[in-house]
Parts: sequence; C-alpha cells; structure tokens
Amino acid sequence: MRFELNILGCGSAKPTTRHLPSCQVLNVRDNLMMIDCGEGAQMAMSRQRLKFSRLRHIFISHLHGDHWFGLPGLLSTMGLHEQTGTVTVHIFKDGAQLLQQMVGFMGQLPYHLEINVIGTQPACIHEDNAVTVSTFTLNHRVPAVGFIIREKPKMRHINPEATREANVPHWAMNSLRQGLDYVTPEGIVIPNAQLTTDADPSVSYAYCSDTRPSPRVTAALEGVDWLYHEATYGEECKRQAHARYHSTAHEAAQTAHDAHVKQLIIGHFSSRYLDETPLLHEAQTIFPNTRLANEGMLVALAH
Amino acid sequence: MRFELNILGCGSAKPTTRHLPSCQVLNVRDNLMMIDCGEGAQMAMSRQRLKFSRLRHIFISHLHGDHWFGLPGLLSTMGLHEQTGTVTVHIFKDGAQLLQQMVGFMGQLPYHLEINVIGTQPACIHEDNAVTVSTFTLNHRVPAVGFIIREKPKMRHINPEATREANVPHWAMNSLRQGLDYVTPEGIVIPNAQLTTDADPSVSYAYCSDTRPSPRVTAALEGVDWLYHEATYGEECKRQAHARYHSTAHEAAQTAHDAHVKQLIIGHFSSRYLDETPLLHEAQTIFPNTRLANEGMLVALAH
Repeated sequence: MRFELNILGCGSAKPTTRHLPSCQVLNVRDNLMMIDCGEGAQMAMSRQRLKFSRLRHIFISHLHGDHWFGLPGLLSTMGLHEQTGTVTVHIFKDGAQLLQQMVGFMGQLPYHLEINVIGTQPACIHEDNAVTVSTFTLNHRVPAVGFIIREKPKMRHINPEATREANVPHWAMNSLRQGLDYVTPEGIVIPNAQLTTDADPSVSYAYCSDTRPSPRVTAALEGVDWLYHEATYGEECKRQAHARYHSTAHEAAQTAHDAHVKQLIIGHFSSRYLDETPLLHEAQTIFPNTRLANEGMLVALAH
Repeated sequence: MRFELNILGCGSAKPTTRHLPSCQVLNVRDNLMMIDCGEGAQMAMSRQRLKFSRLRHIFISHLHGDHWFGLPGLLSTMGLHEQTGTVTVHIFKDGAQLLQQMVGFMGQLPYHLEINVIGTQPACIHEDNAVTVSTFTLNHRVPAVGFIIREKPKMRHINPEATREANVPHWAMNSLRQGLDYVTPEGIVIPNAQLTTDADPSVSYAYCSDTRPSPRVTAALEGVDWLYHEATYGEECKRQAHARYHSTAHEAAQTAHDAHVKQLIIGHFSSRYLDETPLLHEAQTIFPNTRLANEGMLVALAH
C-alpha cells in the first residue's frame, strides 16, 4: 500500500538556483499530505505531477518564511483549479491569523479551507483510516514542531490455499484479515494463523526541521523507521549551526543513531554548499544508512 | 545609459511549468526597480543574475496573489543577504497592512523597509535623478494601476573637436551639456549648437497588467515608447477575457496602435496556451511591432 515521500524543496532559508525552500509531500494511499510549504511549492507540485485535487492536509512546522511563504499561492491556485472538498492547514496561531487575512485576497475559494491551530506541546493532530500524525517539540529560535506520520496496523494477508481448503466463505474473509479465528458451521475453531500470513509492517516517518539536537527530540524519534532531519551545516560550521539553532550533518546522524531509526534522509542544506556530498560522508561515519534529499526525489517508505 | 527590461514572469494567475506569475525588473543605470512580484520572483532574480543589493523599489499593480505573493519571500531573503539602505514597496493600503504584519515574521531586517501606500488615482509616485514613475488607472475586477517609467531629459553630447577648437575650459563642459551657450573670456558668445550634439532621446516604458481595454487606459499610454500589455487570451476567448476583466492579444495591439506607442510586448498569458505564437500573430495583424514576453528575456529599452 502506497506510502511515499516526495521531496519538493530541501534548501534552507536562502533560496538558491539548486534548491527550493522546505516542502515535501507524502502520498498515503493516493491522498497527499504536505509538510511545510516554502515559496515555489505549487510550481514544484506541477513539476512533480502531484495532483492538487488530492492534497487534503498541509502541516506547517514553524513560521519562518522558508517554511510557509508558498502557502498563499498554493491555496489560491487550488481555488483556480476548482478544487472542492476540505483542505486543512495545521499551523501555529499567529500564522493562522495572517492566513485568514490573506484568504480575503483569494476571492471565493471553491473548497472549504479549514485551519487547525496547533501548539508546541506534543499532540496527535490528525487521524484517518490509514495514518496518525503527531507533533513533537523542536529546539529552534522560534516555536517549532516536528511531525511523525505512523501507518496504522495493517490487515493480515489471506492465505488463498488454506482458506479454500477450509471452505472459508467470502463473508468471513474480513474478520480473518483483522486477526480473528474462523469457526466452521460445525463449531470447529481454525486458528487465524493457519489461514492468514502476517500483515505488512506499519511504517513510520518523522520530519524534523528546524532544530538543534536535543535529548527531547531524540526521545520523540525513538524507533521510527524513516527520519528526515535537517543538516543545514557540516561540523566545520558547528558554532554557526548552534547560534542559529540548527544541526550539523554529524548531529543529525547522531540523533538518528541514538533514536534507533532505520533510515535517515538529510536536508535543509545551507546555500553555502554547492555539493552536499561532504555532508553525506560526515553523516555516514555515524549512521551509514543516510541519504541526501534532493528536489524531485521520490522515496517509497513502505513496499 | 542603461535602461533595460528583464522579464522574470509573464504567466497569469495559474502557474505552469512554462511560466512564472507576473514579475519584471527594470535596470535603470544599474539601479533595479521591480514591477509586480509573483511567487518565485526571488528565485528568478538569482537565475537571471540580478543583484538583490541593487533593488531599491518594488511597485505592486494590484493585490491579486499572482502579482505580489513573492514579496514576503523576497523581502526575507534580502534580509538574509545582509542588504542595507532603504527598500521601498509601493502598494495599495490593504496590501501594506498585511505586509507590515508579515514583516514581523522576518526577524530584524538589516535594511530599512519603507512602505509607500499608493491609490488608484493617477499620480507621480517616485522620482530620482534618472526617471519618474507615475501610475494610471486600470480597468480590472479589483483596484489596479499601471506604471509609466519615463527617463528624464538627458544631457547633450559634447563635440570634442569643436570644444577643443574654441578652447572651452573643462569647468564649462557641464553647462554645455545642459544646453547653455559658451561665452569666451573675450565676451564672444558661441551658441551651444556649435559645441554639442543632441542628447539621446528620453525613453518611456509602460506596464499595463491586468486590465480590460478602455479609452482611459489608451489615453494614459499616449506616445510611450515601449508598452508591456497583458494579452491573457486570444480573440477566441474574448467573452472569458471580458468576464475576468482581461484583454485579448487583439485588444492589446489595438490599444498600442491607438496610443501611438512604438513597441509592444505582450504577456500575462493564460495557462491554456502551450505556445503563444497564435497570440503574437493575432496582435501583429493590428500592430506589427509586437513581441512575446518570456521568462529570462532582456530588452534594451534605450541604447
């Protein structure tokens, strides 16, 4: 079942001709969720052939411009595309207020724009059939949260041969998928494990930008499968990184290691790097399973 | 003396992979003036190697998002570039108020941001050594103005041979350039025309987007040298153009013709066109001296 990450922008605040500011889109069973919405997000959506009509939730981590100045343009354009239904923006209070005023310049939107005011305290801010989205507190210059998107437990797989042999009727299949045993008309209990195979594992993805490393962040990330973590600088700029409440590639990798995540993607690169390979190597000395984010990148989080 | 037009974006409201929303930059003697600031303007500045530090004035024609949603990002980034001096944004009152609130999210800007509230009534809104910038009223769904940038009269050219022959001293050259006659120590008047040649003509450029055609607009444009005029649609979409208070290519050309302008550039193309050549041909049947705008285009307005 589809659970994919599209990187739309992985630069930091100063845009360059190589990177766009922060934006990514998760495709969860063909429903799209955007995390951060830097300027140019709507153009990147078109370039990466992501359908506006499938975008239902937008999560904004904090109110630095490079994380949300693409929002007014995106919401306007979704109006021009005659989108219907509800689009929910999850954002801090100050941003919500400003956004409401900007909507006044967008004419009559054909869809319902819902604004969900979020806080810095960890909370589950969204839940649907497929995933939960929860926040955790980052350590940045301004209030900021990360997001963890966790797939819900999935259904077990029917073993076609075994169910045929046991004459399991069609109506009983769904309860088998949910893990229940099958009771024959004669009252014989056939254990679920004989008729099904294990469900696919539920995958979790965490977005962690912008932040200094902190034990609280590491604790929040414990055991997630995939981690996108900012690595604005390399260790040679450690002082600068800390002064600006950012992380180095080394620190991102240390966090990934300490939190026992499985895979790390680093991004939010400073404009000073014309090639991020040194950041990759720096991270890989601590956490080998690291890759560099890049615009246009598509990662299958679950198979 | 340099007077150049850079097209950064010439699409209409719905962005495409072919065009950015409205934005252009005039280079006037190496000082940059931006007209409209659609989303992506700052990235286009970088791509077209226009220096942020030279940008001193930004003129916003109206408050539809595709004409100013790039402003917050641009102003933030100029802060990150440690720009100093004053940057003036000329904008309607509602936009000014929103902009002031957005500036609150940009941290301490190292430059002075001045906001000049403009109205819809024609006015001279800026003047410096080289040009005047004045507004004229457009005919759009929301209050909107066009801009005319006129070079001030230029200095006459010294005729080196004639001034050498007449022994004109160095200190008298500037008054010759300004058109004064030269009086020799003996009291003989040498007419300016014998010592100088004509100044280069002063060139004018008008920006006219978004608008329906109207006699008032045509009158305002009378005799300008260069006209950028929106041509969102072709004549086949005339009804749609008028319903949305836009112009067709035919109408843009008719306005250029009736206002006796010298050169026409059409832009603000609807996303429906994958090739604007038909719009060009449509305009050229009325006004042959027409060209199509395009991102990255550089036009020398004066030589």
